[in-house]
Amino acid sequence: MVSEHAAAQILVASNRGPVTYALEENGELSAKRGGGGLVSGLSAIGDSDGDTALWVCAALGDGDREAVRRGVGEPGVRMLDIDPRVHADAYNGIANSVLWFVHHMLYQTPLEPAFGPEFRAQWASYEAYNRAFAEALAQSAGADAAVLVQDYHLALVPGMLRELRPDLRIGHFSHTPWAPVDYFRMLPDDVAEQLLRGILGADRAAFLTGRWADAFTECCVRVLGGTSGTRIGVHGLGADADFLRERSRRADVEERLVALREQIGGSGDRKVIVRVDRTELSKNIVRGLLAYRELLESHPEWRERVVHVAFAYPSRQDLAVYRDYTAEVQRLADEINSAYGVEGWTPVVLHVKDDFARSLAAYRLADVALVNPIRDGMNLVAKEVPVVSDEGCVLVLSREAGAYEELGEDAVVVNPYDVMGTATALHTALTMPQEERAERTKRLAAAATALPPSQWFLDQLRALRA
Amino acid sequence: MVSEHAAAQILVASNRGPVTYALEENGELSAKRGGGGLVSGLSAIGDSDGDTALWVCAALGDGDREAVRRGVGEPGVRMLDIDPRVHADAYNGIANSVLWFVHHMLYQTPLEPAFGPEFRAQWASYEAYNRAFAEALAQSAGADAAVLVQDYHLALVPGMLRELRPDLRIGHFSHTPWAPVDYFRMLPDDVAEQLLRGILGADRAAFLTGRWADAFTECCVRVLGGTSGTRIGVHGLGADADFLRERSRRADVEERLVALREQIGGSGDRKVIVRVDRTELSKNIVRGLLAYRELLESHPEWRERVVHVAFAYPSRQDLAVYRDYTAEVQRLADEINSAYGVEGWTPVVLHVKDDFARSLAAYRLADVALVNPIRDGMNLVAKEVPVVSDEGCVLVLSREAGAYEELGEDAVVVNPYDVMGTATALHTALTMPQEERAERTKRLAAAATALPPSQWFLDQLRALRA
Repeated sequence: MVSEHAAAQILVASNRGPVTYALEENGELSAKRGGGGLVSGLSAIGDSDGDTALWVCAALGDGDREAVRRGVGEPGVRMLDIDPRVHADAYNGIANSVLWFVHHMLYQTPLEPAFGPEFRAQWASYEAYNRAFAEALAQSAGADAAVLVQDYHLALVPGMLRELRPDLRIGHFSHTPWAPVDYFRMLPDDVAEQLLRGILGADRAAFLTGRWADAFTECCVRVLGGTSGTRIGVHGLGADADFLRERSRRADVEERLVALREQIGGSGDRKVIVRVDRTELSKNIVRGLLAYRELLESHPEWRERVVHVAFAYPSRQDLAVYRDYTAEVQRLADEINSAYGVEGWTPVVLHVKDDFARSLAAYRLADVALVNPIRDGMNLVAKEVPVVSDEGCVLVLSREAGAYEELGEDAVVVNPYDVMGTATALHTALTMPQEERAERTKRLAAAATALPPSQWFLDQLRALRA
Repeated sequence: MVSEHAAAQILVASNRGPVTYALEENGELSAKRGGGGLVSGLSAIGDSDGDTALWVCAALGDGDREAVRRGVGEPGVRMLDIDPRVHADAYNGIANSVLWFVHHMLYQTPLEPAFGPEFRAQWASYEAYNRAFAEALAQSAGADAAVLVQDYHLALVPGMLRELRPDLRIGHFSHTPWAPVDYFRMLPDDVAEQLLRGILGADRAAFLTGRWADAFTECCVRVLGGTSGTRIGVHGLGADADFLRERSRRADVEERLVALREQIGGSGDRKVIVRVDRTELSKNIVRGLLAYRELLESHPEWRERVVHVAFAYPSRQDLAVYRDYTAEVQRLADEINSAYGVEGWTPVVLHVKDDFARSLAAYRLADVALVNPIRDGMNLVAKEVPVVSDEGCVLVLSREAGAYEELGEDAVVVNPYDVMGTATALHTALTMPQEERAERTKRLAAAATALPPSQWFLDQLRALRA
């Protein structure tokens, strides 16, 4: 599928790499390989074209740092041992506490953000962290190499790399939403400009949906006066159908299915509303529970006939606002169970321990999948559920998720702030005739897998080279 | 100035009217007349054209309701005795807790807003409250009358009135900002549509700045597909120079001047940074204090040479989030005074008791006025200070205030979220040469009074009739 070209070097840059190392008790390092779209994509290149690939990433933990010191490493991976304080300031302080909040519109604006001296110190670390990547890439890249820079952690890299190596083809991909201009401009003016100019250092800046691409373009136009000739593209990452179908039929998933059915109870005739999320502020788990409570209140016929299986996996528990949010999810689930639960029926089954096999089991048995983020770059749960569903599953989908652009037509669409509307959508979903549900699931699965990860990656590469 | 026309009837509709009644201990009702742009405007009509005016407003307290019951009333004022619970739901529940928050982007979005059953009940009250106004206006308006409907409390009135009385000329004026479309669409879809269609029931919808007018238009285009032929206008309400100059020279203001100078201390050679606000979440008092603290930190030469006079008058203390905000203002002021204060110098002089004469005194003596709202329809403080300043005053102005459109050129402009940038702006303002400061103040005063309240009102009327 890649257009004809001479064999060339491809570099990927991202904060997290394809492998992490753990220091075992015996002093040995053990490697653990990750998955995802980039891993699939990189493994797809080189097969036919003779391309070579290098992945530049940050050492994230003590194991990774030790691996760098020992010179241990997988071929094709270069880990950067950046000062842990610099990395923490850049990653936690700026990327996840500022840029993530801006693009997802998560701030309590009367008090946050307040860009004071602490922010300025962290911003200097973000610059240093980006510079370390730019320098490593400049050093590692051969002539005519293509460099694919990933996400908001590395927004300054394309511009920095362009100055060091004007000969390279540079792409940047944003995996998050992009903020509306009124929200983006909360950032200090020089920081806002640096971020935009950083990404515009790329030949091509790409996004998960047209909506986020348009928001980025509007920011460039309003803040800088234009996009300086950088091409803007869209690649809607899809689900990996082959992997999911195979993985979800393994024995560990079957075991989880049995256990989940037992927790749900009701001898198999209860409907199941499933959600699977990190406990992330943007995922909207609390309003999902409020909507479920409203369903039980306004449609009491569902009591004892439905169970809400909610998986809310811990995320960023180092931040107070995330801990508070997690506590609120637990509190509300308990409250609903106290208020409505009866012998033999627990209205909300909440699990907070991450278990991928159990997530797949829940996908398989779900009658309804609730995906209601207040803002989300794409949301892969929405794309994975239709692929593995055993008997068809109605997707209740927020219009603020990137996936809405591709799946909106066959989903039951909700405004994520509208608890009453979401309750109504849940009722609509639960009462959808089996035939319609199966047809929609089929179409959803087709749309969800239209651009599988390897193709998503190769498309970017081809577009960058065009 | 009004274009030629036969004498006609003009109706104004607003939640708060030009007069309020208090029930005295002896059972008598005492009337208190208010001020503002509408009062000035209405008093200006009729003088030359023979027009008649009627102001339709809500009875707000027990005194007002008693006045309605007794048939007491000023000529030209019709008070509506709406059920107090309906009024409270519409005014506090919807207008001030939802619409105000949406247009000023004040929500803590991970948890708020959550549009559940309580919202729906309050929304029904908002509809009923708007309907009461529409019916009263329909009943009171003669043929060819012009009706000027005010603000977000009464957004549904133009549409409702249009149905009852297609013959009327209807205008609507928004005194707030208008939300960006991504924020506005948090509202339940039917509510968002009703609000837009309500305002579009007017022949003309007007705003304080082009920015808010554009945001409204974008919401109409994105949500409804267009503005349905309603004309969109802008009238930037200015300060009332004659009133302010006369009022600020009265004896009570002179007394306050003496008292303030004593609190400031330093035998008259200290610089004074003044802010005057309600303790409103959008006014950004906390970040203002943080910026002042940063000024003392990064420019220690200002210690003992500057005082921040902050007036933060109580607002909406029935809401927990406002009480918390007020407490944070007080806490931070105390913290700064503890950290930096010395014998004979109190860095922050905070007053929380509303006193208009003292505000005027502070305007007169201010070297710098800090007006840094995170979002503000106009902000009249920014326009009043230059008018009454004794020796010229540097205006540090948020670009998120509507006043920025008219005053930005001669102000020191800040991004209100940028505490470091605001501290730098304060330093720039404090060190501005006296001559430049005086020249800028002169130009600011001219721009601020370009459209005095009576003219602002008459312009709207003329445009509506055009």
